[in-house]
Amino acid sequence: MKLRIDIITLFPELIRCFAETAIVKRAQDRGLVFIKAYNLRAFSSDRYRTVDDYPYGGGPGMVLKPEPIYRAVEFIKGITDSQPRVLITSPQGRVFNQSLAENLSLCSHVILICGRYQGIDQRVVELCQGEEISVGDYILSGGELPAMIITEAITRLVPEVLGDEESIHFDSFYDLILGPPQYTRPRIFKDKEVPEVLTSGNHSLIEEWRRKEALRKTRLVRPDLLERSNDEVVQEQ
Amino acid sequence: MKLRIDIITLFPELIRCFAETAIVKRAQDRGLVFIKAYNLRAFSSDRYRTVDDYPYGGGPGMVLKPEPIYRAVEFIKGITDSQPRVLITSPQGRVFNQSLAENLSLCSHVILICGRYQGIDQRVVELCQGEEISVGDYILSGGELPAMIITEAITRLVPEVLGDEESIHFDSFYDLILGPPQYTRPRIFKDKEVPEVLTSGNHSLIEEWRRKEALRKTRLVRPDLLERSNDEVVQEQ
Repeated sequence: MKLRIDIITLFPELIRCFAETAIVKRAQDRGLVFIKAYNLRAFSSDRYRTVDDYPYGGGPGMVLKPEPIYRAVEFIKGITDSQPRVLITSPQGRVFNQSLAENLSLCSHVILICGRYQGIDQRVVELCQGEEISVGDYILSGGELPAMIITEAITRLVPEVLGDEESIHFDSFYDLILGPPQYTRPRIFKDKEVPEVLTSGNHSLIEEWRRKEALRKTRLVRPDLLERSNDEVVQEQ
Repeated sequence: MKLRIDIITLFPELIRCFAETAIVKRAQDRGLVFIKAYNLRAFSSDRYRTVDDYPYGGGPGMVLKPEPIYRAVEFIKGITDSQPRVLITSPQGRVFNQSLAENLSLCSHVILICGRYQGIDQRVVELCQGEEISVGDYILSGGELPAMIITEAITRLVPEVLGDEESIHFDSFYDLILGPPQYTRPRIFKDKEVPEVLTSGNHSLIEEWRRKEALRKTRLVRPDLLERSNDEVVQEQ
């Protein structure tokens, strides 16, 4: 097994459902990745299985208590005897992107703590040396979907998970521009025909057309990617 | 019912599992939101239930065929008799953020088409007037997690879904800075004490401290948010 991902959550059933789906299931079936969900409530020490409490200083919403999270992380470290990288999903975190996914896919063990949207006690973030990570600038009610996003993004980068067919070198963001528009059969659908160049068999023309269309779309939809790309070229020089 | 979300996917079981979880389940139980998953394969007309094919012009991976998607969208429009907003999850899309979530939460009907990572036939994007949306700059194998992200983010903005407790006005990004660190009981955990100001009962001092900490963190982790915030102030003047 190349990568173990332990996920601490209030909704383990959702994580288990995800772990039984598509690429994440295949990677597990082939013994490349191991994913396990833990119910945070199981690590609460009081009889009501409380995991949250009111914030000190007042304000709306609840904050996840430090103790259950700390105990869950210590438990996982104990059974795995490893020094995992601890990630906490949070809208306050650094932004998750493809290069962070690549970096994380080199780890052998990751613990993901699913935050709730008013946050988790700051002391346990520090005690667990947790890295807060945000998957985007929108608010969710919990960190389960972000944890699954991170899991799927890094799982597919683990060596041997993807076949040659799906080679990551053709992914968007690989060179900071979007991919070109794609077409498949039938050649004519509802009076719309596939662009002629794609059926020409002329590979250099096809590449040129795709590059041009990809750039056009990137300029239109994501000019920020091109700016970043230019910045990096400048920095390399 | 205020908002209907239909999701076209190759993994309807995962979507159903999600729709039975947490806030999305509660919003449905209360009749505020309706979420339904459709298996794209059910709309394929061939005997093998094919939904993808090789890309014209060559290249790795498969592309989702136009016909099953078109038929699924037409079917949903037929049974709902509405003009829904059609969203397609795609790394080539415009970036999903909180203001787009707010905008979408005003719709009465949204159809979400889960892309696969090499994309869907461009003609069906145009025929369905689909808006391509990306939840972040990372590559996933499919659009199911992004579709659930969009669903959760807009569901919680539908009026009455959130209680006063969770009032959206205290969310991060509401004013383009991150939230302050949060603390809850116990006051001392593993020798770490809650910052004294938070237990002082002095609300103006608490607000000042939170604002300062939030700004400090934003400067450290997300300087881009502050730049955007400044840009907007300049534009308003």
